[in-house]
Amino acid sequence: MESDLRRLRERLAEIFDLQRTGAVLAWDQRVSMPSGGGPARAEALATIGRLAHEKFVHEELGALLERLRPYEESLEYDSDDASLIRVTRRDWEKACRVPAELRADMLRAGAIGHQIWVEARATNDFATFLPALETNLELKKRYIDCFEWDDSPYTPLLDDFEPFMTTTEVAEIFDTVRPVLSELVRDAPEIDASFFDVHFDADRQREFAERLIETLGFERGSWRLDPTVHPFCTSFSNRDVRLTTRYLDQGLDSVWSTMHESGHGLYAHGIAASLERTPLAFSPSLGLNESQSRTWENLVGRSRPFWEHWYESLQETFPEQLGYVSLEAFLAAVNRAEPGLIRVEADETTYSLHVILRFDLERRLFEGKLEAKDLPEAWREAMHEYLGVEVPDDTRGVLQDTHWSGGAFGYFPTYALGNVISLQIWATVREAIPDVDGEMRAGELNGLSTWLTENLYSLGRKFTPKETIERLTGSPTIDPQPYLAYLREKVSALAA
Amino acid sequence: MESDLRRLRERLAEIFDLQRTGAVLAWDQRVSMPSGGGPARAEALATIGRLAHEKFVHEELGALLERLRPYEESLEYDSDDASLIRVTRRDWEKACRVPAELRADMLRAGAIGHQIWVEARATNDFATFLPALETNLELKKRYIDCFEWDDSPYTPLLDDFEPFMTTTEVAEIFDTVRPVLSELVRDAPEIDASFFDVHFDADRQREFAERLIETLGFERGSWRLDPTVHPFCTSFSNRDVRLTTRYLDQGLDSVWSTMHESGHGLYAHGIAASLERTPLAFSPSLGLNESQSRTWENLVGRSRPFWEHWYESLQETFPEQLGYVSLEAFLAAVNRAEPGLIRVEADETTYSLHVILRFDLERRLFEGKLEAKDLPEAWREAMHEYLGVEVPDDTRGVLQDTHWSGGAFGYFPTYALGNVISLQIWATVREAIPDVDGEMRAGELNGLSTWLTENLYSLGRKFTPKETIERLTGSPTIDPQPYLAYLREKVSALAA
Repeated sequence: MESDLRRLRERLAEIFDLQRTGAVLAWDQRVSMPSGGGPARAEALATIGRLAHEKFVHEELGALLERLRPYEESLEYDSDDASLIRVTRRDWEKACRVPAELRADMLRAGAIGHQIWVEARATNDFATFLPALETNLELKKRYIDCFEWDDSPYTPLLDDFEPFMTTTEVAEIFDTVRPVLSELVRDAPEIDASFFDVHFDADRQREFAERLIETLGFERGSWRLDPTVHPFCTSFSNRDVRLTTRYLDQGLDSVWSTMHESGHGLYAHGIAASLERTPLAFSPSLGLNESQSRTWENLVGRSRPFWEHWYESLQETFPEQLGYVSLEAFLAAVNRAEPGLIRVEADETTYSLHVILRFDLERRLFEGKLEAKDLPEAWREAMHEYLGVEVPDDTRGVLQDTHWSGGAFGYFPTYALGNVISLQIWATVREAIPDVDGEMRAGELNGLSTWLTENLYSLGRKFTPKETIERLTGSPTIDPQPYLAYLREKVSALAA
Repeated sequence: MESDLRRLRERLAEIFDLQRTGAVLAWDQRVSMPSGGGPARAEALATIGRLAHEKFVHEELGALLERLRPYEESLEYDSDDASLIRVTRRDWEKACRVPAELRADMLRAGAIGHQIWVEARATNDFATFLPALETNLELKKRYIDCFEWDDSPYTPLLDDFEPFMTTTEVAEIFDTVRPVLSELVRDAPEIDASFFDVHFDADRQREFAERLIETLGFERGSWRLDPTVHPFCTSFSNRDVRLTTRYLDQGLDSVWSTMHESGHGLYAHGIAASLERTPLAFSPSLGLNESQSRTWENLVGRSRPFWEHWYESLQETFPEQLGYVSLEAFLAAVNRAEPGLIRVEADETTYSLHVILRFDLERRLFEGKLEAKDLPEAWREAMHEYLGVEVPDDTRGVLQDTHWSGGAFGYFPTYALGNVISLQIWATVREAIPDVDGEMRAGELNGLSTWLTENLYSLGRKFTPKETIERLTGSPTIDPQPYLAYLREKVSALAA
């Protein structure tokens, strides 16, 4: 038994090294690689990904997991070993259901689809993209056929990003959220934010972003920040976190993009060292991970107490641009609610509506209620209904996101689930750290990140998302009410 | 046969991807990685290295190579396929001779030795380092026992870096070089270079270095330049070349360090596309590779015609530091010969003496004529004899280089062989491009890099070093006379 466990851990560590190595290749590709390196990088990524997958679906791994069943049952459910065997077994069974050929077809179609989409978006030409999209959908339907499902064929897709969550559960949450948000957006006052529409020096943006990060709770020498086109966060261990942001010519988006990626980064930084080099050294779901990027971006990074500490320093960094702008005006601008066309530019209040729209369309596609060719029209209708805006072209409509081009269906809802979950966790934080506002006002964020690390981040992927949420909040249910109450208060404060 | 060849190419491509992925991990470690990432990176590097090695020494690869022998014999010696099979077979036979356990022991001892050396060098404490050094030597002797050799047990070590070269051949070349250089150093006049001992702004150094690189012949989007502690060059394909340099607070070392690494980079950039993802997509030996870094650093980068084009621009970049320095004074300073203690700081004339000293000591160690404990004293004696300098401590003596701590014996001589070979090739360049000086004077280096690419770089590792040199120069012999004539002329020009 002990030698079986050792052998399991060795095999998983090797696979982990391959996965993290693939992540280094991907980070380098997006942050550093000269454009000429593309073709060779695609080969290297494919090779590393294939080796990791082959090693994972190996039948010896299944045999090890089977032989370790009695040992697992002899352990506490919460123990690292029991969790490792339990979580790995589910991963293994899922991975083995998908034929290698289908997996390769999906990867290839996604790569081709992405290329076509780039061109189609640039030329506002949905028709060119449609065949690639239909191929992706067809392959995903074959993927769904590898699994069993009860409520909707969409559920197996969701499970890849939000494990154990059903389409019905998501729909129920979103059905509660959607009308409230649509109403809030309609009622929100117009706020002047024109002081952001001027030049902000990139070097100063970077200096300010790095000063912020240094106070969030990262250990020294455990992170770095680089500029990139589409900001993201990745990590190669809990002490090698790679944050990225972008410094636009106008405005201070880099501040909130940095806070957002730092939330992902703090999660990776907080994973317990005992889980390193195992499949547990990740977060339990994209929704839970996103809940933390949203926590640091919005609940901290758009809050009054946070800026009561930082605003003077921001004004000193950009005296010409912000010297004459009051804290009140600044806070109103960064908390404003304004319907728009583009998801990635959406504010806190409208963001989830963009996501719910995509979820609705995806679900209808896979439930046979919508055909791919009718997506542009369905998009326009939904944008009108949910956000009250008219879509002028597909580039700013159905073609705006990369996800579908690469075959990622079921990913979008996790963004909005993250928003919802972040407020549930925040309510627990407020109970555990009653003076969290005072700490933020003092520029002291270590207490918050330490608490979140101990109670959430360190658990890694030992438990399911619901088990994890229950450990934190006392209930496994994802409840949208705290989120809605928070947004209601935000919008009414704007109107005041 | 065709399917065997395809299978061979597939296996080699996979191994190549792993090797180049390891190179990405190593580049990132030295250029980007936060310090906290060290432990996880060591694991990832070990896993990738082990997988590449396991896949290479696999018996099926040997069987494929054996089955392909008749096909190989049916082909022209020069063809890509014949070269691929021939070169891979030699690599495979060499790799299979070394037991996996010994290989692992050497890697481990090298990693431990490196850590101990860092501390020992910092504290000038050779005695602390001695046991680790002895372990490395002991393991290398076991490594030598895996091979057959005629003239010296040192020859198998040399073969890892300079294939097919014997200790006797190297000794013969160095015995010719050493007395001439010692004499030149004694006779060289003192030159004032104090204008370099002032501050040079790092950003301006970087801008100038990048402007230089842009003129050398790299395709756009095929390289990048980053600062690092110990400059090096690596590449992940012939269109993804990573140059590094360092910007010291004083002086302009970054210029020649950039030119040096660009020489390595141009070699990598010039490898024929048809050799990509095979074991032929490298240079035939470290000596040949170094011949090109030296060509661009010294034969181009310290030449009068080159600076007749660039010096004005350099003065404009650093008007306070160089505005009052004449081209004559500048050229004399960058070509001066001055004995010193440290190899990596040595000038063009003294550099090979540092290398020959290390070769002599290594050879005596492995031929049983010197014990490791007597190295510090032997070092002092040789420095006195070769360069006429007294070594004040081991930090600036036997402990200065990292190579031995990691177990790299047989590497040093390739530096001096590179110097020697660079002048042989340069003589051919002068015949092929009679007006190479005129081109440099016009800031036009594309002709030179194109010629070197077509006649040398593009060949990759298809031929042995000697075959490669013969193709270029008409003779397979490494002849030190052009090198010595070049240095004699340099030193006498300084005295004039």
